[in-house]
Amino acid sequence: MISSLCQTLNVANQVNPPRGMRDILPEDKLLRERLIASVRQDYLARGFQEVETPALEDISRLSSGQGGDNEKLVFQVLKRGDELEAAIKSGSGLADLGLRFDLTVPLTRYFATNQALLPRVFKAIQIGPVWRAERPQKGRYRQFLQCDIDIIGDASLLAEAELLSASLAALANLGLEDATIRINHREVLSQNIASLGIEDHEQLSAMITIDKLDKIGIDGVASELAQKFGQPVADAASEWLLNQKDNQFPEILQALVDSMGPLATKIRYDASLVRGMGYYTGAIFEIEHPLASSSIGGGGRYDSMVGKWSGSDAPAVGISLGIERIIELARLPKEQVSSLVLMLDSEALTGQALRIQSELIAQGVRCRIELRQKNFKVQMASLIKQGFEKFAQLDPDITSASDLDVRLFD
Amino acid sequence: MISSLCQTLNVANQVNPPRGMRDILPEDKLLRERLIASVRQDYLARGFQEVETPALEDISRLSSGQGGDNEKLVFQVLKRGDELEAAIKSGSGLADLGLRFDLTVPLTRYFATNQALLPRVFKAIQIGPVWRAERPQKGRYRQFLQCDIDIIGDASLLAEAELLSASLAALANLGLEDATIRINHREVLSQNIASLGIEDHEQLSAMITIDKLDKIGIDGVASELAQKFGQPVADAASEWLLNQKDNQFPEILQALVDSMGPLATKIRYDASLVRGMGYYTGAIFEIEHPLASSSIGGGGRYDSMVGKWSGSDAPAVGISLGIERIIELARLPKEQVSSLVLMLDSEALTGQALRIQSELIAQGVRCRIELRQKNFKVQMASLIKQGFEKFAQLDPDITSASDLDVRLFD
Repeated sequence: MISSLCQTLNVANQVNPPRGMRDILPEDKLLRERLIASVRQDYLARGFQEVETPALEDISRLSSGQGGDNEKLVFQVLKRGDELEAAIKSGSGLADLGLRFDLTVPLTRYFATNQALLPRVFKAIQIGPVWRAERPQKGRYRQFLQCDIDIIGDASLLAEAELLSASLAALANLGLEDATIRINHREVLSQNIASLGIEDHEQLSAMITIDKLDKIGIDGVASELAQKFGQPVADAASEWLLNQKDNQFPEILQALVDSMGPLATKIRYDASLVRGMGYYTGAIFEIEHPLASSSIGGGGRYDSMVGKWSGSDAPAVGISLGIERIIELARLPKEQVSSLVLMLDSEALTGQALRIQSELIAQGVRCRIELRQKNFKVQMASLIKQGFEKFAQLDPDITSASDLDVRLFD
Repeated sequence: MISSLCQTLNVANQVNPPRGMRDILPEDKLLRERLIASVRQDYLARGFQEVETPALEDISRLSSGQGGDNEKLVFQVLKRGDELEAAIKSGSGLADLGLRFDLTVPLTRYFATNQALLPRVFKAIQIGPVWRAERPQKGRYRQFLQCDIDIIGDASLLAEAELLSASLAALANLGLEDATIRINHREVLSQNIASLGIEDHEQLSAMITIDKLDKIGIDGVASELAQKFGQPVADAASEWLLNQKDNQFPEILQALVDSMGPLATKIRYDASLVRGMGYYTGAIFEIEHPLASSSIGGGGRYDSMVGKWSGSDAPAVGISLGIERIIELARLPKEQVSSLVLMLDSEALTGQALRIQSELIAQGVRCRIELRQKNFKVQMASLIKQGFEKFAQLDPDITSASDLDVRLFD
């Protein structure tokens, strides 16, 4: 009994996707592809150009310090053949490649590689999976989809303004008109942190604590700052955080907000917004939605990353939509597809079925050919679940779609 | 001089994608996404359902013998943390995951995992990248896109017929009406090989040689067979290969061909067609096109793979399009998109530009906002290369798209 149970569990265990990763079921995949197509279309309409980079990058680039804590989460790819043997013998690095943990590092590498073939101001779309070996937990996956737009080569506020405007428009077209954007500026943040009495070399450590505000609240942040930097710093931080609700944009962000026109109402200043990555140099953003418990996107200006890979620096700013969270909230208009199941009693009717299927598809009808199964009730239920509303029996004397006796599933 | 040259080469070397992988440039990406959307649409129209599986699978599944030689080409992912340390100490396997080398192994695993949630006859679409650590060479990449349809749970010839019909239709809609399909049956192939005087346990070795026919010709195959099995076998094989041009379908394939109706003219019997994988059990296919030097797709029936992962077996057949080769031949209708560049002299006009851009996009116009650069000629050339035909200067007194003075690029 126990052994047969174990065997069952064992078999079940064998047929799972890898830990922390998942299969996308057909209904979810359909929604996902419609959502991606909608966002892609919105971005292309603004003259952005889509790119694709390999899933793998050289391991040295994924551990260059640009990715912050994400660099610790890289899935590393084992060297192969002689190189692997040599690495094992010499005790040197076993991996030469890694799966990308975001789309920004690959994009800046792409720009450095292909700069001669790209416009001087490059407005890029990149949509694709990224991988992070995080501890698996509910709602967090080790492979997930990101959808980024970036503008490389434009230091003006036009770049920030267009990214914010484009992402709000894309979200509105997914039914997320209520999305808003919190915004801060790294220079202002640094000044604020300095004025709490924190030294320059402790800035990053202080940012990591302040970044936890959403999770642990003002008291939690103050207590962690007290431990790190003493009570006076913690008291100053508490007062600062309590008084930053008045939403007065600092001067350095005012022109950007003004340029947003009616969209300015969607933008809120958040002096305590940090963003995890170390590479940001200017404005930083985080997109939220009243129905989402955490942010649904974010980004910022990162003016020194391109220079890390190529000889010459280029200003850059980007914003990323977290598709996995957006997909749970999106409300897309119902697809208007007429669909029909063509039911056969015998495979001998295959040729006729294929001909009539072609005819129906040419008329814009989605047509699934289905051999009648023994358990017809189960078969019908499955077809209804797939979204089919109508069916027709194919008899040997039917030669054209117009002869079909089309019925609704009860 | 030499040292500065080396430095330049070194910098150039740092900004490449990984060896054997590539970046997709914007024009190519646009074509690629249009092509994928077209194929997806054609398959959805037949009631196929799209799925997505993770890029990674457990390493044990990727080395189970189902993938033939491709299993040697898996990019293996290093274990992490304590598990990696334990593996190094004990000398056990360093990898626990691998990048998929095809879409068939993941699909059958997906079916075994999710069977309870899927229709009894499951018609699946899967489109995604696969990875193989092949020796890099011209036109072969270590990451490439596959586009598969499979029917699991249908043992009838309807499954084969629908796959062939659907792929020919999808190719025709890409301008590849001249695609044809070579077809063989593994049982007939086995009988033919046996009748050459080859023992059962040598079948696979003989198949590997015969599979090289396209590359080394009849004489090459005969000479390799002579080495492996002696001259009498080689002579019998030469005669067989010379006389298999008459294109008489064997009885086991005749009903399938008959069911194809007018499409039967696109199908040719090839008694020497082998296909590399060991898992095929019935009909096998290879798609060709007069302008392609090698096959642009292929597949076949594999009735025993699902049973490898789950307790119960399920009949299955699939066909895969090689998107990388197809994309070089495809002729898609020109996109009918009206597009315009909105030219600004100053970022101070950002708000106004975003407003007019929204207005134009709502009218269906693709609109790129562009700050005027110092080298205006270079900028114009780049915009023309991006496909823009028209531009308009945004002056401070313009308040609506209808006020724009739209001009053609010379």
